[in-house]
Amino acid sequence: MKIGYVQTSPIFGEITQNFDQIESLVGNSKADFIVLPELFATGYTFISKEEAASMAENTEGKTSEFLMRIAKRTGAVVVGGFIEKDGNHIFNSSMIVSDSEVLGTYRKLHLYYKENKWFSPGNKPLEIYKVKDTRVGIMICFDWFFPETIRSLTLLGAEIIAHPANLVLPYCQKAMITRCLINRVFAITSNRIGNEARGEDNFTFTGGSQITSFNGEVLSTAPKDKPYIDFVEIEITQARDKNLNKYNNVISDRRIEFYSLE
Amino acid sequence: MKIGYVQTSPIFGEITQNFDQIESLVGNSKADFIVLPELFATGYTFISKEEAASMAENTEGKTSEFLMRIAKRTGAVVVGGFIEKDGNHIFNSSMIVSDSEVLGTYRKLHLYYKENKWFSPGNKPLEIYKVKDTRVGIMICFDWFFPETIRSLTLLGAEIIAHPANLVLPYCQKAMITRCLINRVFAITSNRIGNEARGEDNFTFTGGSQITSFNGEVLSTAPKDKPYIDFVEIEITQARDKNLNKYNNVISDRRIEFYSLE
Repeated sequence: MKIGYVQTSPIFGEITQNFDQIESLVGNSKADFIVLPELFATGYTFISKEEAASMAENTEGKTSEFLMRIAKRTGAVVVGGFIEKDGNHIFNSSMIVSDSEVLGTYRKLHLYYKENKWFSPGNKPLEIYKVKDTRVGIMICFDWFFPETIRSLTLLGAEIIAHPANLVLPYCQKAMITRCLINRVFAITSNRIGNEARGEDNFTFTGGSQITSFNGEVLSTAPKDKPYIDFVEIEITQARDKNLNKYNNVISDRRIEFYSLE
Repeated sequence: MKIGYVQTSPIFGEITQNFDQIESLVGNSKADFIVLPELFATGYTFISKEEAASMAENTEGKTSEFLMRIAKRTGAVVVGGFIEKDGNHIFNSSMIVSDSEVLGTYRKLHLYYKENKWFSPGNKPLEIYKVKDTRVGIMICFDWFFPETIRSLTLLGAEIIAHPANLVLPYCQKAMITRCLINRVFAITSNRIGNEARGEDNFTFTGGSQITSFNGEVLSTAPKDKPYIDFVEIEITQARDKNLNKYNNVISDRRIEFYSLE
């Protein structure tokens, strides 16, 4: 199975240009599964809810059309971030899309920094999507900080974690090594690069998109400061075997009755 | 508050020599809290339950006396590993000891590799101990692999994680950076060094004992291959503030109702 990411440098508010950048990076690549960054079409650093809402869409809009186009072109199922509108609420969401349909959306559960000034926190259960012969779970950026997210997705059956991101802190990539190792899942962290100085905020996004293996090995690392695309071949059955060695199983060894997680 | 660890090179079965090694490393050091490795008195690589049981103790034995002596000498509360006997069961445990009493024992919840051939898995709840003005939780070695352990201890009120270890895999030290950062707790991983070739097993213990700060900073690192002792001054109130920034709290931001952790 061939999985990959596109690391982009979105220009704030320039949706068409941001789509074009991705199409040109993708070129004639073929793959099974591709992850794009969080909010890849719009940019990240909003200054008001009104501004963010003005770029919100549902699953029948510019972004879903674009993602289907990429899916058709590459043969892959594609995940990417967008601003999701639902009544008066907008969410920091990701869409999972095949060449012919939107398979679902995930609404970011753990909002970072000022995001909660414009976005509503995710209000839908974590879900698992069938992609070819594998099962995929989605989390967005800061969701990584809470180990409960990947653990829950793993327990729900995810073998690959799609992780669109707009990372500004330096911790995530190393943390994903631990997260993947202890859950024995693959993860694709698709980050952006570039700088956005808007309102009181000045964010530099840290790139370094990463594909992490079920055993904690880093299979691909993108540069910190350049648009980049990469793919790796993985053997998905490796994420189905939860035995760490002859005596330990990373899931069944859990001692649930002794945990205090409320 | 001054906290520290002693990284030792135990000789299998040579309890008196192993005590002496620690006393000589400790010298006239003074501290508030000290962590010794897992099974520091006995060594690790048993070949039968009978062998391990022959070195088992309760909380009124050689090891508790030794730990109280170290507590008296240093002024510290001391945590260290031992084989705990309870009826027909033996546990891979740690004892927490002041200069005058055993405050409690913790029985390792997640047994590694062949340990479950001789040890019974921990059968007591996670507990928090008052040490001077702070609260301490204990986990042993492979317990780190399960994020539920530190998370539970944090939610129960731990500000410092005492982590006696006999690590043979290379992942723990980096993982502790993530674990401490996301829980905003301090941790003292007290590892051993040396090699034990016994029966079919041949373990090289990886040293690199580490004190990790609430913000993921590494405050002390021991060499990989030498006995070592170190102390650092910490400001424990830093572990009480669970705010990551003005908008995020690492505990209250959890979305428990959306997790699937069973």
